[in-house]
Amino acid sequence: MKMKYALIVFFLAAAVRADEGMWVLNNLPKDLLKKKYDFDLTDAWRDRAMKASIRFNNGGSGSFVSPNGLAITNHHIGSDLIQKLSTKERDLHKHGFHAKTIEDELKCPDLELNVLQEIIDVTKDVQAAVKPGMTPAQALAARKAIFAKITKASLAKTGLRSDIVTLYHGAQYHLYRYKKYTDVRLVFAPEYQIAFFGGDSDNFEYPRYNLDICFFRVYENGRPALTPDYFKFSTVGPKEKELVFVSGHPGRTNRLETLSHLQRRRDVTLPYMLNMLRYREAWLNQYAEKGPEPRRLAQRDLFPVANARKALTGQFHGLVDPAIMKSKEAVEEALKPKDPKSWKPWNHLRDIHDRFAKFEVFYYLWERGDALDSRLHRIARHLVRLAAELPKDDGKRLPEYRSSALESLKFQLFSPVPISKEYEQMKLIGSLFFSAEMKLGPTTHGKSIPDFARALIQGTKLDHVDERKRLFEGGAKAIKESKDSMIVFARESDAWFRDTRTEFDETEEQQSQAYADIAKIRFKKFGTSIAPDATFTLRLAFGTVQGYEVDGQKLGYTTTFEQMYARAKEQEHHHPFDLPKRWLDGKKKLDLKTPFNFVSTADTIGGNSGSPVLNRKGEFVGINFDRNRHGLVRNFVYTDRQARHISVHSRAILESLRKLYDAEGLIKELVQK
Amino acid sequence: MKMKYALIVFFLAAAVRADEGMWVLNNLPKDLLKKKYDFDLTDAWRDRAMKASIRFNNGGSGSFVSPNGLAITNHHIGSDLIQKLSTKERDLHKHGFHAKTIEDELKCPDLELNVLQEIIDVTKDVQAAVKPGMTPAQALAARKAIFAKITKASLAKTGLRSDIVTLYHGAQYHLYRYKKYTDVRLVFAPEYQIAFFGGDSDNFEYPRYNLDICFFRVYENGRPALTPDYFKFSTVGPKEKELVFVSGHPGRTNRLETLSHLQRRRDVTLPYMLNMLRYREAWLNQYAEKGPEPRRLAQRDLFPVANARKALTGQFHGLVDPAIMKSKEAVEEALKPKDPKSWKPWNHLRDIHDRFAKFEVFYYLWERGDALDSRLHRIARHLVRLAAELPKDDGKRLPEYRSSALESLKFQLFSPVPISKEYEQMKLIGSLFFSAEMKLGPTTHGKSIPDFARALIQGTKLDHVDERKRLFEGGAKAIKESKDSMIVFARESDAWFRDTRTEFDETEEQQSQAYADIAKIRFKKFGTSIAPDATFTLRLAFGTVQGYEVDGQKLGYTTTFEQMYARAKEQEHHHPFDLPKRWLDGKKKLDLKTPFNFVSTADTIGGNSGSPVLNRKGEFVGINFDRNRHGLVRNFVYTDRQARHISVHSRAILESLRKLYDAEGLIKELVQK
Repeated sequence: MKMKYALIVFFLAAAVRADEGMWVLNNLPKDLLKKKYDFDLTDAWRDRAMKASIRFNNGGSGSFVSPNGLAITNHHIGSDLIQKLSTKERDLHKHGFHAKTIEDELKCPDLELNVLQEIIDVTKDVQAAVKPGMTPAQALAARKAIFAKITKASLAKTGLRSDIVTLYHGAQYHLYRYKKYTDVRLVFAPEYQIAFFGGDSDNFEYPRYNLDICFFRVYENGRPALTPDYFKFSTVGPKEKELVFVSGHPGRTNRLETLSHLQRRRDVTLPYMLNMLRYREAWLNQYAEKGPEPRRLAQRDLFPVANARKALTGQFHGLVDPAIMKSKEAVEEALKPKDPKSWKPWNHLRDIHDRFAKFEVFYYLWERGDALDSRLHRIARHLVRLAAELPKDDGKRLPEYRSSALESLKFQLFSPVPISKEYEQMKLIGSLFFSAEMKLGPTTHGKSIPDFARALIQGTKLDHVDERKRLFEGGAKAIKESKDSMIVFARESDAWFRDTRTEFDETEEQQSQAYADIAKIRFKKFGTSIAPDATFTLRLAFGTVQGYEVDGQKLGYTTTFEQMYARAKEQEHHHPFDLPKRWLDGKKKLDLKTPFNFVSTADTIGGNSGSPVLNRKGEFVGINFDRNRHGLVRNFVYTDRQARHISVHSRAILESLRKLYDAEGLIKELVQK
Repeated sequence: MKMKYALIVFFLAAAVRADEGMWVLNNLPKDLLKKKYDFDLTDAWRDRAMKASIRFNNGGSGSFVSPNGLAITNHHIGSDLIQKLSTKERDLHKHGFHAKTIEDELKCPDLELNVLQEIIDVTKDVQAAVKPGMTPAQALAARKAIFAKITKASLAKTGLRSDIVTLYHGAQYHLYRYKKYTDVRLVFAPEYQIAFFGGDSDNFEYPRYNLDICFFRVYENGRPALTPDYFKFSTVGPKEKELVFVSGHPGRTNRLETLSHLQRRRDVTLPYMLNMLRYREAWLNQYAEKGPEPRRLAQRDLFPVANARKALTGQFHGLVDPAIMKSKEAVEEALKPKDPKSWKPWNHLRDIHDRFAKFEVFYYLWERGDALDSRLHRIARHLVRLAAELPKDDGKRLPEYRSSALESLKFQLFSPVPISKEYEQMKLIGSLFFSAEMKLGPTTHGKSIPDFARALIQGTKLDHVDERKRLFEGGAKAIKESKDSMIVFARESDAWFRDTRTEFDETEEQQSQAYADIAKIRFKKFGTSIAPDATFTLRLAFGTVQGYEVDGQKLGYTTTFEQMYARAKEQEHHHPFDLPKRWLDGKKKLDLKTPFNFVSTADTIGGNSGSPVLNRKGEFVGINFDRNRHGLVRNFVYTDRQARHISVHSRAILESLRKLYDAEGLIKELVQK
């Protein structure tokens, strides 16, 4: 009992004392910042942070760094697009890209950027709509209806993309309004080998040496957009112990989840995910080794898979660490009221997770589509469902087909990015075989999996955008009459997939209600002094730039170009430690003492990739691109003993742009007064 | 019903007509060979095949190719030893090795070769010992006792290694007597990159271009052994359509397994194995990328893991192919007597497999040791068990500790091969984390897995051969008193592990009995005209050299050096398609039309690696090293439409030894009259 008490004190105290928190922009810890760092977080500072921060809808963050729409993000966030803009003959991913003039900038086929403009608390409206005593199905319908109503009205009123964000797992609901950019052009990307020097091996490790950046520019009406809210590039960068801020879109944390939720993650969700990711990685690697062109095609999928495998491995290791589980248990016990009669939401959640555990793998395989890893199938499913959903009232649709979401969906659906049928077929066969390993295999009508997949892929015309548009315009009738293999499959299996979707959504609705009850108890104790779990929406984190110790070895707060060359040599320039020719030849041009990457204690997670790191003045001093392996448990617990996020130093960006990439124009735009 | 009947006819007929069968040397299909190929298989031919074929106890085959103990096998069979003989400074695996004189030959630390001398049928003795009506535990004890008695007597009488081989899953028992060689020296190995050109990507594929060979020499009393039975090297090699034989040690096939057995493989065993192998591969790869020395260390484990992952993937794909399962079902139904009352053994096997399915993963993790992937732990377990088992009667010991097995076990146990604690620790941590994913995690006494593993590895002295010998000599008392971390762990967990071992062995005993009943029915119908499943003992297969068609493309029966250079170019010499410098520089010296690899229809499986391919005269015309992906289902079904095994052509060996390796001495020994 003593130890338990000590743990509680430690963790609750830590929550207050430490730099924990991915804070929502309408509830920033101003007092704490004043007290601990003597920093006044003004509304003007906050507003610029909001309007200069960008969400990359493919899973990352970024920011404006000039008044003329110039945006910076990580190479590994832009690489999806860089690869789409590449061809067999022109491999921008491998060789890099630099538009010396505005005319040279390359338009991305399907990239949407969102910039937050406003947050409105709509908790009361949502809670009023979902009445006590409703069945889960009724509650779900009511919640869907009120969400649709609010977002539709907001869209009509402002013309802005309007999403409702669920905070504290269902205790608060905020309406987020975004300005949207869909004409986005590539300005600059370095070679993949310097952006991701050290590859999978060094991913989630420190010391690091990555120029993980690229630049885009947003356009409106065919011209560079005006972006008066932007971050000025610091030519100095951060110093040791300096207070810094990270403004970005952390994807998902699980710190407020109950013990039973974490146990389900540990026992069901993560073992499944890890098996699936390793499977996919092995399957893709095998294909990639077939030759240069397969390698190029597979690379786009390989990075996110390997990255997720490593991140989730770290999460899993955290959850099987008895110390971490014990600390979570202690926090939960401290939060629970004395009277066991008040433990209902916790007990309810335990039941809910037992239920999830029974069908979640099936749900992941078939409704999320892990077993149908094919873009052509995803298109077919959207077309089939759009035909069924669009005639319904907005509030009765599946959320992804609501009016407020439609424009973004169509942008993706009609993307002109070419689809390789050979590649699609390979992926579909692989994912169906995986479902067979899960003993939740498909009905292939007596066919072997390869024959079944081949028939689906070869018999579809959905690789043509025109055909997609024709089926979309034609609505229910066109879908019903279609003999396209993929449409037929999606149409005939839809009822089956929807069943598991309904089960999942209704169970999740119950989960939200139980979490809302727990949140009330937490608010009563701590107010909103504990930040909500991450939700891939804009958050501000803060911390200080500082190194740390591992096994008695001190790791400094920055690395340098010089250390990178030493590392390449020590690794005999063996892939992934091979440097691009430009960097080998250009070594003597560089100031080798230039700080390259640096670490800070600020609280980040996946999705923060590309987030600007800002100093007190709100200047851009670096760009976050990773966290170290000690930071992988941050999904569950914040710690700043060794856990760090890793950023590219602003000086390294300027130095390499100037000396190696001959990018004076770009530098001028970044450092203009 | 019609189709089913057609399938039965096809499969039963195919069994007779085709070149199916890995035949035991005391039951060769002489009549079939005479009838189909007009070939007289004489006793002299057979005896030479037996005494010139070698079993490599690390999992492969080989043969004598000179009267002075010169042996050839695959590089990938020898590579284990080649790596053990390498150091950080002298990487024989990477750069190859060539002993120009006898004095230069390198002694292997722990390689045992077996050469079969005699086979004796002991079925009656075994069956007489196991009485009807015995409980599974009694039957297992009786069978263990009679096995021990027979092998002990054989060893005493002949001095030869004596093993009992269980054929037809328990219907026949044969005593195999082997001459044993433990002084084996490395003579020649090419560079890894030419032995395994195309790497994991081309593994199990054809066309191929691998010089997958190496030479060893066996010694007796410090001098090259005399091996009057050997295969003469053909300077011509095989022609298209020529009859060839493969004499080797196929590891395991599953063709006579019941449907319920195959279903268990499909639903439990293989999904587990695939998950485990992919896990291990990802874990090892991550370590290997840390630098040149980790890469060298991990390579030894990586090849077998990747190889097994690919082979088992092929097996799994076969078992989820409805056509294959239907054919197995048809064969089973055709074999079953009309009267359902006689279906008892099949029903019994279904129950047995349901039982296996419940505990097999636990057994694999803890008793087989998948969760304890550490050589130090395996040593500790042997020492703990030896102390408990050696005082017992031979017939009551676990089979691996019988008198007849003891010498080989000690040879491994006291191997002087250095053990890297850092590497051991990495593997142990990885495998324990895997057990946690299986939700069958260890009791780590409240420690985290890394801390637990670190304590085990850092607290043991079993990396010192002297300490192992001391504990072995000291017997039960030394083990009981030991405070060595690994001994303590093995000692304290042993009762627990033995429980699952007992459960497994007793269930397997029941399985043997049921299979013996089925075998009786099969013998009545077909005699022994159907070869038994493979058991990693000597078998003779035959077939013809011929190409095949895939997707309308004809693949010739051989490849050439020229085609290899073309393939390297097409792959931009990207690893694993990078050629050693010797091969790049030496291209002009080679006759580029030399046949390199070739394929035949003979029936092989894993374990056959390194088997000599012989012509009618019994000459060595090539060395088997792989099968194509169509051959992966051969575990379950023999087919010769596309399935082929792949061999290095004898001319390619001679041409490269002469022109690139300056190995005239070796050539002289191979082609001497």
